[in-house]
Amino acid sequence: MSGYTYPKFGAGLWHFANYIDRYAVDGYGPALSTLDQIKLAGSVEDLSYVDVPYPFTEGVTVAQVKEALDQAGLKAIGVTPEIYLRRFSRGAFTNPDPAIRQQAFEVMHEAATVVRELGANYVKIWPGQDGWDYPFQVDHKNLWKLAVDGMRELASANPDVKFAIEYKPREPRVKMTWDSAARTLLGIEDIGLDNVGVLLDFGHALFAGESPADSAQLIIDRGRLFGMDVNDNLRGWDDDLVVGTVHMTEIFEFFYVLKINNWDGVWQLDQFPFREDHVEAANLSIRFLKHIYRALDKLDIVALQAAQSEQNPLKAQRIIQNALLSSIED
Amino acid sequence: MSGYTYPKFGAGLWHFANYIDRYAVDGYGPALSTLDQIKLAGSVEDLSYVDVPYPFTEGVTVAQVKEALDQAGLKAIGVTPEIYLRRFSRGAFTNPDPAIRQQAFEVMHEAATVVRELGANYVKIWPGQDGWDYPFQVDHKNLWKLAVDGMRELASANPDVKFAIEYKPREPRVKMTWDSAARTLLGIEDIGLDNVGVLLDFGHALFAGESPADSAQLIIDRGRLFGMDVNDNLRGWDDDLVVGTVHMTEIFEFFYVLKINNWDGVWQLDQFPFREDHVEAANLSIRFLKHIYRALDKLDIVALQAAQSEQNPLKAQRIIQNALLSSIED
Amino acid sequence: MSGYTYPKFGAGLWHFANYIDRYAVDGYGPALSTLDQIKLAGSVEDLSYVDVPYPFTEGVTVAQVKEALDQAGLKAIGVTPEIYLRRFSRGAFTNPDPAIRQQAFEVMHEAATVVRELGANYVKIWPGQDGWDYPFQVDHKNLWKLAVDGMRELASANPDVKFAIEYKPREPRVKMTWDSAARTLLGIEDIGLDNVGVLLDFGHALFAGESPADSAQLIIDRGRLFGMDVNDNLRGWDDDLVVGTVHMTEIFEFFYVLKINNWDGVWQLDQFPFREDHVEAANLSIRFLKHIYRALDKLDIVALQAAQSEQNPLKAQRIIQNALLSSIED
Amino acid sequence: MSGYTYPKFGAGLWHFANYIDRYAVDGYGPALSTLDQIKLAGSVEDLSYVDVPYPFTEGVTVAQVKEALDQAGLKAIGVTPEIYLRRFSRGAFTNPDPAIRQQAFEVMHEAATVVRELGANYVKIWPGQDGWDYPFQVDHKNLWKLAVDGMRELASANPDVKFAIEYKPREPRVKMTWDSAARTLLGIEDIGLDNVGVLLDFGHALFAGESPADSAQLIIDRGRLFGMDVNDNLRGWDDDLVVGTVHMTEIFEFFYVLKINNWDGVWQLDQFPFREDHVEAANLSIRFLKHIYRALDKLDIVALQAAQSEQNPLKAQRIIQNALLSSIED
Repeated sequence: MSGYTYPKFGAGLWHFANYIDRYAVDGYGPALSTLDQIKLAGSVEDLSYVDVPYPFTEGVTVAQVKEALDQAGLKAIGVTPEIYLRRFSRGAFTNPDPAIRQQAFEVMHEAATVVRELGANYVKIWPGQDGWDYPFQVDHKNLWKLAVDGMRELASANPDVKFAIEYKPREPRVKMTWDSAARTLLGIEDIGLDNVGVLLDFGHALFAGESPADSAQLIIDRGRLFGMDVNDNLRGWDDDLVVGTVHMTEIFEFFYVLKINNWDGVWQLDQFPFREDHVEAANLSIRFLKHIYRALDKLDIVALQAAQSEQNPLKAQRIIQNALLSSIED
Repeated sequence: MSGYTYPKFGAGLWHFANYIDRYAVDGYGPALSTLDQIKLAGSVEDLSYVDVPYPFTEGVTVAQVKEALDQAGLKAIGVTPEIYLRRFSRGAFTNPDPAIRQQAFEVMHEAATVVRELGANYVKIWPGQDGWDYPFQVDHKNLWKLAVDGMRELASANPDVKFAIEYKPREPRVKMTWDSAARTLLGIEDIGLDNVGVLLDFGHALFAGESPADSAQLIIDRGRLFGMDVNDNLRGWDDDLVVGTVHMTEIFEFFYVLKINNWDGVWQLDQFPFREDHVEAANLSIRFLKHIYRALDKLDIVALQAAQSEQNPLKAQRIIQNALLSSIED
Repeated sequence: MSGYTYPKFGAGLWHFANYIDRYAVDGYGPALSTLDQIKLAGSVEDLSYVDVPYPFTEGVTVAQVKEALDQAGLKAIGVTPEIYLRRFSRGAFTNPDPAIRQQAFEVMHEAATVVRELGANYVKIWPGQDGWDYPFQVDHKNLWKLAVDGMRELASANPDVKFAIEYKPREPRVKMTWDSAARTLLGIEDIGLDNVGVLLDFGHALFAGESPADSAQLIIDRGRLFGMDVNDNLRGWDDDLVVGTVHMTEIFEFFYVLKINNWDGVWQLDQFPFREDHVEAANLSIRFLKHIYRALDKLDIVALQAAQSEQNPLKAQRIIQNALLSSIED
Repeated sequence: MSGYTYPKFGAGLWHFANYIDRYAVDGYGPALSTLDQIKLAGSVEDLSYVDVPYPFTEGVTVAQVKEALDQAGLKAIGVTPEIYLRRFSRGAFTNPDPAIRQQAFEVMHEAATVVRELGANYVKIWPGQDGWDYPFQVDHKNLWKLAVDGMRELASANPDVKFAIEYKPREPRVKMTWDSAARTLLGIEDIGLDNVGVLLDFGHALFAGESPADSAQLIIDRGRLFGMDVNDNLRGWDDDLVVGTVHMTEIFEFFYVLKINNWDGVWQLDQFPFREDHVEAANLSIRFLKHIYRALDKLDIVALQAAQSEQNPLKAQRIIQNALLSSIED
């Protein structure tokens, strides 16, 4: 027995779905219903929260979702409206057709309702189809205005609900409108409402060329870190690999920044195990995250901060390797 | 009237399909049958060839495809076995399960048969699921051996058919086995057969960090350029954008290298117009390619070669800009 | 004779210097004094402005620089304090040592004085050594605070002078503090002074994964576009190649956005012709920029804006190709 | 006391030099002579080998170098001719001027002599100025021929000496001729001599988009791994950071591949600690490499190979994390 009281762990419910892409057009496995996915999530050790996509799969009701979550010992942390399906493929907030923009708003208002019904923390807004593909395709001034004004309108209409924007540089669009931490914070300044914040995805920050730790600090300093999730990638794409399989040091720095800022939310997974066992992927991830948690406990923070006040990377690395690699001093 | 005799233009038949990805899981448009796609292809001005994926969509026969091609005024340049669908999602040639590898061979042998029946030029081999996703996932020696030995076995068994390997750095796998021009040529050396060559995709070369012109020269110098296709991207991903929309100079250099080597095959499109009109995308592409063809005609090759013998980029650029930037509206 | 009244062209004076890097440690050519560089700049056809690094090379005075500029028919558009030399190699604004930060302020105050003396438009601030190299090296909150507070202090102390921050993702630091358009604007919001703005470098925006046209619009919309310069690269690094040699379409879109916003400043070169003739590099660049200017004149802006209101890239591309690909030899 | 017999550790002698770049043109520290650098190298614990650049700094003789190495308890593993200084800035093997190519050969022949005199293992060939910067700058066929023929000529003339080509995608050239593992092996096939091989730099492989472990296997399988060195980077550039500070898992996989192939050469550092204490940077690196060595000892290779035979990344990661993170099972 470890004696540690670990943070709460969560996952996007899609961690337990099967995927499809432009090549394996018959999918990497059979389609699973929202309820099936919840059941699978429930079989992960130490998972407490899920982020639930909305609309649910065909025929599934909120009541059924509630019950399934209860039976699985899970709670909803967020609800993610699917504003990236076919009808929104040319944009949700920034669609050139006002009628489609209206449809997107309706889905998002419904998602806000589901947040209230499930007692979740936020609507997660991930406008992956908002952006452009080609030079000269859009009027940049107008596109950004649609994005910012739309978000303001949505959040004003639901002042009791939090909206967490998840930025990403690209995919499925060649360029996404909300592409980085700084751009998202700039838009949030313009929106001027307290209930709009950021869902910081570790892998998206890496992919955006950011230091995820620096992005976390920047967002926290403006009081906007509504949620976060983790995974891994090779920096050039949003691979959504299992956390800890590539960037051990940078995930450690990310959680270090959360710790020193007393950010105590859910440690959430956003992973796409295309070809892997979904439950085992989650278990391996949580095993790694617990290691990170213990390493933070072992970390000599006073010594690290002294090294950082000199901006001395060699001293800093020696200290963090001692904690992260445990027996490296042997 | 231009007075030019243009090269033959072709396209992957998927240019006229609708797509799906991990977000728009209901697809960017309704599914289209192989025959529907051929009909659409036939409506493009100046298109003469298509590369046909195999198996065809449900219920479609070779005879029907033949007839549809005839009616559309098209010929098959190649046949592409779909060795990247669900059952091959953990690999075709390099699948850890020998039974699945066997199934992949069967599909490819059938594709060779279709090549013979349609009078096409080659089986295009694009093993997008062959590779790995994570550090430590595979035994690299064994994986490469499976890839090379499998290709040799396939080509030996069909000595009358050409096999054109289309390399790409990644996607859908995080890392593809046949990832670059040089690696593919190295494997082809080891295979040691005349009927294995390369399908050089301009965008894949850019994405691989190559100069597509240099890759073309390298492949031609070994007598292995069996086919090529073009498109565009932002270098960081295989965006499959419309050709000429981003990299005008580099596509011009690519075709310049083909010209001075007297390579006279089909100028083929490999594009995924997710949100665009497929026929108009092809028309715009061919309009641009004709401009390139005329620009090559205007290019002062003697002066360019003199500049290149000094490796003088300023002289070279002055010369090529004179040719490239003259009117597209001819 | 063309009949066009072209914009004013400028260049960083370093365009006419010789360079050094970590491999060719004896330099790509002999060192040239500030005055030598001005003389070379004067020999470029159609060059009107230069951005002058400060301190000048050994022994050169402001009076001499003034006279040399006059004789060369040039004016200073900006002055660039060299806050990236050895003593600032661990940072200028963000150096861990307050004494070094003080030295950096002194150099920048002197640069402000030189701006007044030369009648230039701005001090350009390019803090290339401000940032970090390793995970865990710095306290991100503190580093950003040093960067923002320092800039505010500098600008407050010189309210009659403009300060233009030139952002770049990295180099020489592995990560620069002012790394993107949005982050820079966010910092400028926090600074809260009218005399702090942005020097937008086309190549830095590309390197940052931005659309330079979109970045220009964003900065203009906040009234902060104090200057700009152009060049080219392959997106993965700040190559400072000759403008127009790689990204013709995107440079065209960049100038299109400046035009529709009536931005009428100097079209400035920031290029490093390591191995090329410096004057010829500038001449070729200006020849290309004149082509862009004429192409903007030919561009059917009404039709383009209609295409953009539909976000239709195929229509937009057809229109812009008609304008861009007409003859450079006018 | 650990009880382990560690491998021999080495470093490029430039690890102990001071650097210069295009911004800090006065250098990151005072210039150090070859002999100064050797003295510093000698003060690193557990360093046994250095790779020595040639020509030595002004006035230093081979005899002095020999003596200095002896006194420092070091041996030369290789000699690196500086074929990237000013006179070779437009290329060494591929320079358009035959007289400059001749000068490059002379320097390399002299380096071969120094290898013999110092009893080193190889001449390291790093032709960083061989390549191109712009589209259309070079005739690709001719450039590659110059590169391959030149290397053959050099190696034929010195059959008793090994030549190890160190490939890198780019820098200082925008594109280097020997840019990847596969391209280098392809050229070596064409050269057809036993004394030409590869110096595999871990960071260059990462930067080239390769899996360094896969590249090591490929090169070993052709009997061409003459040497290797390690460092770290963020994949987008050759940052030459301290090993283990970013990519712990991939460096572990790299050494795993060396181990299972019984490759028993020197574990060598190629790092540029621009702003750090050079000796401490080496000490921290070697501390980390010893951890890797012990982790390889703890690694359950039988279980790992079973996981790899299934290509099961989750099983593989669980196994390697147990070894790399030591106490992760707590």
